[in-house]
Order: sequence, then structure tokens, then C-alpha cells
Amino acid sequence: MKLKDLASRLDVHVIGNAETEVTGIASLRSAGPTDLVFIEEEKNLQLALQSKAAAVIVGKFRNIPSQSKPLLVSAQPRLAFARAASILFRNARPAVGIHESAVVHSSAQLGNNVHVAERAVIADSVELGESTSIGAGCVIGSDVMIGKNCQLYPNVTIYPGVRLGDRVIVHAGAVLGSDGFGYVRDKASGHYEKFPQVGRLEIEDDVEIGANSTVDRGALDVTRIRRGTKIDNLVHVGHNVQIGEDVVIAAQSGLSGSAVVEKDVIIGGQVGIADHVRIEEGAILGAQSGIPTKKVIRGKGIVFWGTPARPIRDYLKELAVLARLARTKKS
Amino acid sequence: MKLKDLASRLDVHVIGNAETEVTGIASLRSAGPTDLVFIEEEKNLQLALQSKAAAVIVGKFRNIPSQSKPLLVSAQPRLAFARAASILFRNARPAVGIHESAVVHSSAQLGNNVHVAERAVIADSVELGESTSIGAGCVIGSDVMIGKNCQLYPNVTIYPGVRLGDRVIVHAGAVLGSDGFGYVRDKASGHYEKFPQVGRLEIEDDVEIGANSTVDRGALDVTRIRRGTKIDNLVHVGHNVQIGEDVVIAAQSGLSGSAVVEKDVIIGGQVGIADHVRIEEGAILGAQSGIPTKKVIRGKGIVFWGTPARPIRDYLKELAVLARLARTKKS
Amino acid sequence: MKLKDLASRLDVHVIGNAETEVTGIASLRSAGPTDLVFIEEEKNLQLALQSKAAAVIVGKFRNIPSQSKPLLVSAQPRLAFARAASILFRNARPAVGIHESAVVHSSAQLGNNVHVAERAVIADSVELGESTSIGAGCVIGSDVMIGKNCQLYPNVTIYPGVRLGDRVIVHAGAVLGSDGFGYVRDKASGHYEKFPQVGRLEIEDDVEIGANSTVDRGALDVTRIRRGTKIDNLVHVGHNVQIGEDVVIAAQSGLSGSAVVEKDVIIGGQVGIADHVRIEEGAILGAQSGIPTKKVIRGKGIVFWGTPARPIRDYLKELAVLARLARTKKS
Repeated sequence: MKLKDLASRLDVHVIGNAETEVTGIASLRSAGPTDLVFIEEEKNLQLALQSKAAAVIVGKFRNIPSQSKPLLVSAQPRLAFARAASILFRNARPAVGIHESAVVHSSAQLGNNVHVAERAVIADSVELGESTSIGAGCVIGSDVMIGKNCQLYPNVTIYPGVRLGDRVIVHAGAVLGSDGFGYVRDKASGHYEKFPQVGRLEIEDDVEIGANSTVDRGALDVTRIRRGTKIDNLVHVGHNVQIGEDVVIAAQSGLSGSAVVEKDVIIGGQVGIADHVRIEEGAILGAQSGIPTKKVIRGKGIVFWGTPARPIRDYLKELAVLARLARTKKS
Repeated sequence: MKLKDLASRLDVHVIGNAETEVTGIASLRSAGPTDLVFIEEEKNLQLALQSKAAAVIVGKFRNIPSQSKPLLVSAQPRLAFARAASILFRNARPAVGIHESAVVHSSAQLGNNVHVAERAVIADSVELGESTSIGAGCVIGSDVMIGKNCQLYPNVTIYPGVRLGDRVIVHAGAVLGSDGFGYVRDKASGHYEKFPQVGRLEIEDDVEIGANSTVDRGALDVTRIRRGTKIDNLVHVGHNVQIGEDVVIAAQSGLSGSAVVEKDVIIGGQVGIADHVRIEEGAILGAQSGIPTKKVIRGKGIVFWGTPARPIRDYLKELAVLARLARTKKS
Repeated sequence: MKLKDLASRLDVHVIGNAETEVTGIASLRSAGPTDLVFIEEEKNLQLALQSKAAAVIVGKFRNIPSQSKPLLVSAQPRLAFARAASILFRNARPAVGIHESAVVHSSAQLGNNVHVAERAVIADSVELGESTSIGAGCVIGSDVMIGKNCQLYPNVTIYPGVRLGDRVIVHAGAVLGSDGFGYVRDKASGHYEKFPQVGRLEIEDDVEIGANSTVDRGALDVTRIRRGTKIDNLVHVGHNVQIGEDVVIAAQSGLSGSAVVEKDVIIGGQVGIADHVRIEEGAILGAQSGIPTKKVIRGKGIVFWGTPARPIRDYLKELAVLARLARTKKS
């Protein structure tokens, strides 16, 4: 692809030879002679120019030296780079069609350009939107509806009745719509009996779910993950949880039943959120922090840490006080 | 189903029109005109009566007003509701028979009404009890014995030789009988060599195991999970672990090798139990708590919290003392 | 197998009848009359001699009584036992050949004695080294290269382009090469867009990866796990992580993007390692400890604990000081 064409699609400005061909993206270290790279800080410009890359996406730097490589200038160079990657890789279209080893029920409705890979199972009454790709070994239960341009990697399991919006990405081994963890203990026998887990799971557009993560359906109502939320690997989302738009949840965090996470929240790795907790808009939960039952966490842009989670300033002060005390005591 | 028939199977009392038809269960919010709902607290009765539900399961409340809906009266309304759901859904029997895409070894023994779904693999010498259902894509290794009325959801893997009792439920992606984590370091080379992981895994009746959880076989002896224990998603159970009856383990908790968990223990989410720990009968471990190697936790009904876990009263006092100190120190 | 033959292969000394036949290994408790057992401490010798075992691997004990069973004497009895197990079980060779239900692309290159089990999918341009075994339901993406004598258990997913060395063991449900967790937030829309995750994953010889663990590919560069490292179940390894040789990582630990773990490090269960952390050679991280962003942990053989992790001595002192304070304060 010519740099000038890429620049026009990215709506950025070119300095230097706009006829340069780029075929891929890379890091400064790994770049080959037709790769595009990016830098965000002006101090890295020399490094970028010394790399083997064909061209560099840069920020609106003060001093652009007379340079040896063409530049693309963007107010958000990392974003422009991500979009450039997406444009360059879009040409490499995945396979289309139903592999002969897949098992697709006759009542399933498949849109145009759908791909169903080897050994995938599509149960009755499933609907797959156009250009959606179902990886090898996936099992899509009855009545599941999946929108357009979704990508399911291999060995994903979707329980019956789950709904996915458009452009949803689900990584290998993830399980969507499993039963929540709810039991009633019989006072007479002391045995636990299963509380019905018959609600729904709805995942909106542009959500991404990591490998081997699990998202439970509602018990009687609905578990919902709203548009644009990104979930890392091995995350657990319990029944009836409500996650707002543009939430980010790092690996191995867990959200217990009926937790509410409002939009723009950022959740670090291995965070534990108990049942009926509410994390309000824009709060940030540090890695491994824990939020006890029914707590409300409030504060746009405020970082919380520890178990039970408190504002990080307080937590760090506590740590410092404690360390000082331990040092001054005789051991 | 008529309310009077349901009431007789639940052994509860009906107030109002016992001829009312119910077809499903629901929450107050989502109930339709043929749904059954339940409430546990008398203060919610008006809300329930205002819902669209056909009938309400209630407790032995003091004041039952002259009402617009039939009621089922139970000493344990949540339990009655759970059982009602189980009765109503039992009519919706899952499929029976071996799907033509499944691979079933000729030496496998399948009971009556067994279901083996699409692309499941049943290896040699497997035994499946009557009315057991194996989900699509499951892989059941050689010599596995599974009892009656079990339900395995899709893409479960069971290693050779594992035993499951009756009515065991295993959710999608769970792995049962994998090798434990045991190595011997050669003092000469510094390399780790695999310690044999050739023991067994036995899971008793009425156990439920969550999506993507992993349970290792014994190294030389047996890992055992006793009757009625319920395990949530993404839980890890190491080799040689012994879990008693009616234990509840929430999501993402981990039990290291040779840990013993006695009956009626409740384990919150993300709890870490080190090797050779013993959790005695009826203890309760708060979410994210950690039990160091070889510790014994004792105390029926006592909640433990923190790492290392201590009685929650002590832990909360420590937190309060520390917070006070941090506030009074100059920052 | 005769004890004398086993002894010669283990390079250990026999006391007693070297013609004794052993067919398996066991614990003292479970040993049958043709089993081999081992003990490390001299005080357990009587117990071992009273077991039903055919023979006992022992250390270089001071007093070897005139005994009723043959002994194998080794400076490292546990290691000798592990190796004996490996020799005895090697005779039980796994199946060889391609199951008719597997889907193997015509461009895949399979070495001698490769086994591809039921319903496994081998995509185009895959290379499998000799005597490698691919479990039922595994999905091996395009261009994956797997070395010799590897064993993949069922339902493993390997994304395109991943490289595995020789003798690598991957347990059921593990996912290798999934996309890392990287997004760029568009300042204009507030939406997250996917940062390219197009790097590689390289896993060297003799690595073992536990059930349902996930290892992400590099974003632009490479994620690498070096020779001999052992990873337990449900572990998360993020993009661009570098793990050295002979590292041990217990269950449910997580390593965030670009973390570096040097050789001989030991990581307990549920440890959280933030992005760009460096754990230097031989450090030991206690279970559930947490290492904040960009920290360097240094100290061969030193145990670190807590979040943020500090030397365990300091941490224990802090805990003691705090407990004392809480006891002396009025509640």
C-alpha cells in the first residue's frame, strides 16, 4: 500500500516520499524495509529513523529534522498506528464458507460471507450475521444470535440463547452463558440444591473477550456487557452482572453475582469484586484489589487499591506507616 | 402444569385458585402471565402481587391479605422455587442418542437414554450411566466411569481413569484428571524432572463443577471431591486434594496439593489454599484470603479473612488500627 | 522389569535380590506386590519395609538394617523414583497414526510416529516433529511448528505461527498464542481500538503448561518461555513476557505484558506480576504476592511476600507489629 493512500485513510499528513510502499507494521526493533513503525515521544525519533522501517508515524513534534524516512504526522500516533495495522491486515481476509467437517443444523440462519471452520457445531435456530467467523471446534448452542463481523477463535462454547452484537471478538476456550453459581441449602438435609440459572446473556457491539474467560448467564434475568468493553484472559463474570460501556478488565479478575460496573471503569488484574458491588463511572481498581459485598466505589479517575479497596493514597500511607513501625520495633 | 399438582409434588399448601396453570419461573421483574415467582420477605408481598406472575411462592408470613394471585406457602420459599423450577424444566428433556458425528469406541458401555452430542469423543472402556448427557466436543478418556443422570456441557476434557458419581454436572471447558504440578529438581543439572502423576480422581454424586475449572488427578494416590460439593468457574484443585461433602467454592479459588477441606466449608472467590493445609468442618474463608502451607483453620461458622487468614474480627480491627495510625501521622 | 535392569538405567546400587520384578510405582499406602516405592528420610524406612511394595528406593542412609525387601540406593531418591516411573511407563506407548476423524491439511508435515487423535484439526503448513502426540479436539493453527516428542492433551488451541520445542507438554484446554490485551483509546470518541497483536510466541524444549492456562503472543515482538520452565493450571502469561530457564509458576498466577522473569525463579500460586516488572534470577515469590508496575525484584533464594511484595522477613514483622497493636487497642 502506498503511504499516500494510507495517510488519506488515516486522515494524517505525510512528510517525505508519499509514494513509499508499506506492507506491514512492526516495532522499531523488528522492523523490516517495508514496515511501518510509530513513536510517541520526540526523543525516540533518532532511534526510529535508524531502524530499518520504511516509514514512521510520529506525533506533532516541535522539531522534525530533515530526515531519511517518510513520516506520517498524527495527534495520536499510537492510534494511527493501530488503525494502519487494521487497514493493512484487512486485505488478508480470513476464509469464507462452511468446512465440510462442521455440523450446522438445518434451521440455522447464516449471513453472507460467514465462515464456519473445521468441526464447529452450530445448533438449531442459531443466527450468524454476515462476515462472522466461527473457529474450529466452537460449539454454538440453540437459539444463539451472533451479529456481523464477529470473530470466534477455536474451541469457544456458547450456551443456548446467548446474544452477541456486531464486531465481537471471543478468544479460544472462552465460555459464554454458563450457569451462575447459585444454590439453596435445604435446612432439613443440609444439602445444596441448584437455584435455577435460566436467564440470558447479552453482549453488545465491539466487545472483546479473552481466552478461557467465563461469563455466566443471568439466574432469572440478564447478564449484560455493554458496547466497547474489553475483557482479558481467564476473567470470571458472574450471573446478573451489568458491565457498562468502554470498561477494561485485566486478566484473572472476577466479578461476582449482580455486581454493577459503570462505564469507563478500569479494572486491573486479579481484582475481586464481590456480589452486589457497584463500581461507579471512571473509577480505577488497582491489581489484586478486593471490593467487599455491596460496597459502592465512587470517584472518576481515582485509583483504589488493597483489600478492602481504598484510595491508593490512603493505602500507600498505611503501608509506609506500617513499614516504619516494623523497622523501629525490636524484632 | 396445574398449581395443585406442583404443590403436591413440592409438598406445600396452596391459597387461592389451585387450577391455575404455570409454565415457567421468573423474577418479579421479568415474570409473564404463566410464570411462578417467589419472595422470602413479607415486605415484598405487594410487589409480588403487582407483578404479572401467575402465582407466588411465599414464606409462612403473618398476614396474608386477601389477594389477587394464588400463593404457595412454604417454610423455605427459595428452596420450593428451586424445586419448582427443576420440576417444570424436567419436562423439557434433552436430546437422547449418539450423534452421528460423535466418535464412540466400540468397547464403551452406554446406559439407556444416554446422549452423546456432536463430535464428542468417547474412548475405549468408558462407562456412561443411564440418562447421562455428554456435550458436543467433550473428550472422555479411556476407562472413565460416569454415573447416571450426569450432564457434561460442551468441550469438557476428562483424562483417563477418572470416576464421576451420579447427577454430576460439569460445565463447559472444565478439565478433570489433568496431571498435578510436581517435579523433582536434579541437583546435578538444575533441571526439573516430572514427578509421576499417575493417581486417580474421584468425584462423588451431586457435585457441580464450573466452566473452565481444573481438577488434577492424584500424584500416586487419589484426589477426591465428596457428595454435594459445588465448585464455581475457573477454580483450581491440585493433586491429592480431599474435599468433603457439601463444600462450596466460589470462582477462581485455588487449592494446592494435598490440601484437605472438610465438610460444610464455604470458600469465597479467589481464595488461595497452600499445600497440606487443613480447613476444618464448617469454616468460612472470605474472598481473596490466603492460607499458608500446612496451616490448620478451625472454627465452625467462623469467618476468616486476609493473607495469612485470621478471624475476620481480628483482621478488621487491624485494618481500623492501621487506618487510624495513617490518618494521624503527618504524610 | 528386573530390578537390576532398572538399577543399571538409573545408575544406582541394589541391595538384596536384584532379580525382583517391578511393574509400576506407588505410594507406601497404595503399593501392591510388584510396585516400587521411595523414601527420602531414614525414619520412614520401617514403614516402607512394612508396605506391600516389591522394592524401595532409599537415600544414602547410615543404617541399612538387614531387611525383607530389595533396596535401590540413590543420593536423590525422589529423582530416582521419578526416573524409574518414566522408564516403566515408557513401555506403555501412546497410540500412533492419524485418526480418521482428524482434519489434517494436505500441506502439513508430520514426522514419524506422530499421533493425531480424534477430531484434532491441523491447519495448513503445520510441522509436527517425530513421536509428537496431538490430543483429541486440539486445534493447531496455520504455520505452527511443534518439535519432537511433544504431548498435547485434548482440546488445546494453538494460534497460527506459534513455535514449540521438543518434549513440550501442554495440558487440556490450554491456549497458546492468543492476542495480548492492548488497546488505544481514541481521545475523540473515548472508544478503545485494538492495538495490533501480531507478534510471535516461542516455547522452548521441556516446557510443561497446565490445563486451561493461556499464553499470549507478542504484540509486535515475541513472547518467550525458555527451556525447562514449568507452568501450572490457569496461569496467564501476557504479551511480550520473557520467562527464563527452569522457572516454576504455580496455579492461577498472572504475568502482565512485557514482564521479565529470569531463570530459576519460583512463583507461588495466585501471584500477580504487573507489566514491565523484572524478577531477577532465583527470587522466590510467595503465593498471592503482587509486584507493581516496573518494579525490580532481586535476591537469589530470597522469599518475597505481600502486595506490594517485600522480603518475607519484613512482611512477617509488619504483620506481627500490626496484630500486637490491634490487640492492645480497645476495640
